[in-house]
Amino acid sequence: PDAAAFDAAAARNAALAKPPGALGRLEDIALWYAGWAGSARPQLHRPQVIVFAGNHGVTAREVSAFPSEVTAQMVVNFEAGGAAINQLARTFGARIDVHALDLARPTADFTQGAAMEEDDLLTALRVGWEAVDPGAGLIVAGEMGIGNTTAAAAMAAALFGGNPRDWVGRGTGVDDAGLGRKAAAVAAGLACHRGHLLDPIEVLRRLGGREIAAMAGAIAAARVARIPVLLDGFICTAAAAVLERLSPGALDHALAGHCSDEPGHGRLLAALGKEPLLQMGLRLGEGTGAALAIGLVQGALACHSGMATFDEARVSTG
Amino acid sequence: PDAAAFDAAAARNAALAKPPGALGRLEDIALWYAGWAGSARPQLHRPQVIVFAGNHGVTAREVSAFPSEVTAQMVVNFEAGGAAINQLARTFGARIDVHALDLARPTADFTQGAAMEEDDLLTALRVGWEAVDPGAGLIVAGEMGIGNTTAAAAMAAALFGGNPRDWVGRGTGVDDAGLGRKAAAVAAGLACHRGHLLDPIEVLRRLGGREIAAMAGAIAAARVARIPVLLDGFICTAAAAVLERLSPGALDHALAGHCSDEPGHGRLLAALGKEPLLQMGLRLGEGTGAALAIGLVQGALACHSGMATFDEARVSTG
Repeated sequence: PDAAAFDAAAARNAALAKPPGALGRLEDIALWYAGWAGSARPQLHRPQVIVFAGNHGVTAREVSAFPSEVTAQMVVNFEAGGAAINQLARTFGARIDVHALDLARPTADFTQGAAMEEDDLLTALRVGWEAVDPGAGLIVAGEMGIGNTTAAAAMAAALFGGNPRDWVGRGTGVDDAGLGRKAAAVAAGLACHRGHLLDPIEVLRRLGGREIAAMAGAIAAARVARIPVLLDGFICTAAAAVLERLSPGALDHALAGHCSDEPGHGRLLAALGKEPLLQMGLRLGEGTGAALAIGLVQGALACHSGMATFDEARVSTG
Repeated sequence: PDAAAFDAAAARNAALAKPPGALGRLEDIALWYAGWAGSARPQLHRPQVIVFAGNHGVTAREVSAFPSEVTAQMVVNFEAGGAAINQLARTFGARIDVHALDLARPTADFTQGAAMEEDDLLTALRVGWEAVDPGAGLIVAGEMGIGNTTAAAAMAAALFGGNPRDWVGRGTGVDDAGLGRKAAAVAAGLACHRGHLLDPIEVLRRLGGREIAAMAGAIAAARVARIPVLLDGFICTAAAAVLERLSPGALDHALAGHCSDEPGHGRLLAALGKEPLLQMGLRLGEGTGAALAIGLVQGALACHSGMATFDEARVSTG
């Protein structure tokens, strides 16, 4: 981030006509954004929501309440403007881009072998990287992929340890037996790839999926372009965690947009030291939780950049 | 609320192309709004933010970090568009109306006698009532009034019991000695008016203030007009609590927009059974916390009313 812009924004914040700290986290958001945007008085221009979709071989383990064909059906729905993320992107003035990654060719079942070959992984990372609009003022990366909460749980367990049961949740709504199958799949994946999971990129390749790799690519590209990011749910955060494990501090340009109802998400955010902006019980993915938080960033920047100072407003200080 | 509209909205919600419950509290917000708006597929039109300002005689007890003249200075700032609430209202497309209530004539010091005479109270209630635009789709009532966290704390203690220390906080930023003076003022107010505080309207008249009464009037008017309300911070919630104490259920048309950093606010929301939508550490008043939550209502209604159903999107159910 730009230290001069951050410092100038902090000085402006201290001069605004309000008691010190009275805007709470809105002040933190504004200073964080100012540092990354390189402007002491930034505006939020052109937020971009990017939704990546992929299919997962681990669905053979019956880990989802929905069939794999739903991934492609939802991509059609995204393109027709009918999904939740379309409505939220429109509400907060964000453009939305949808990238379906080789849906007809699911990843391999990670309980049996690596989810992706190296060239699959690289292609997916590049799709994500290139999806970022260099002129965007904020990036939300979302996903759709039947089976991908199981992949994210396996990645989280590989990256941060703990029992598979700690990381799995009901996803789209599996019952107790389904939850048991998810934990068993995670355990089988960790066993299958034992000895190869110290490298975070190998965790992504062996246990992840194309849409997860694409989100990691997008978040990394945003970092290089100094574009602030709002993290979405469990799967997005698992993708982001790969970057943090590769290079601590790699997510300093990202805030956690929300904490989902998927129990592993709160655990993962705590491991990353990220306090979520929203906790609204969402568990849909698509980027919906982060998109909802765009409004908070808009509000924070509007206050920071639009308010009068004590001097301008001729308000007495305390 | 309109039971038929609520039921029709619930049926629509169940048909939307997402796992059941996956939009969390957004679903609850949409159904709540649909019931009050009387529409199964509502849009959010014309949100209105109303800021009321009043001055308080209890400032003679040195309960604020800022002088009383700041109330009038901030009214000028609201009218010039320079305050935080102006930026947030603009961000979320709300109109903003400002009503200064007799600022040159502060209420009486409630430690010595009733804050307001009956005609003052009635005038303030009526200003609030008449401030509500009958065509508004959502109401946020906010306030400005140096000293009013002390008045709100006294009201909360009178309405819900407990130690004065439980209800006072740092407001605009008093130090420990100031906090002690606030608790002492609350205790003195309760002692002064002992035997007259069983009637919630008397609590408002004796311990409250003009802007607090106006907020109560606005929230009551919104109820009669079936306009949904977002409650703001501690002072707004204390005003609302008067209505709930008068008639349980009187706040069914209101959601808590946020929980402020003022410690009594969380306690008051719990007493009212209201779970806040946001917890962002704000403690500014003006309606800012509730205004920030307008975006969440917009997002909830956009999803509810704009999403495709499983049938429309041709997505397979689980």
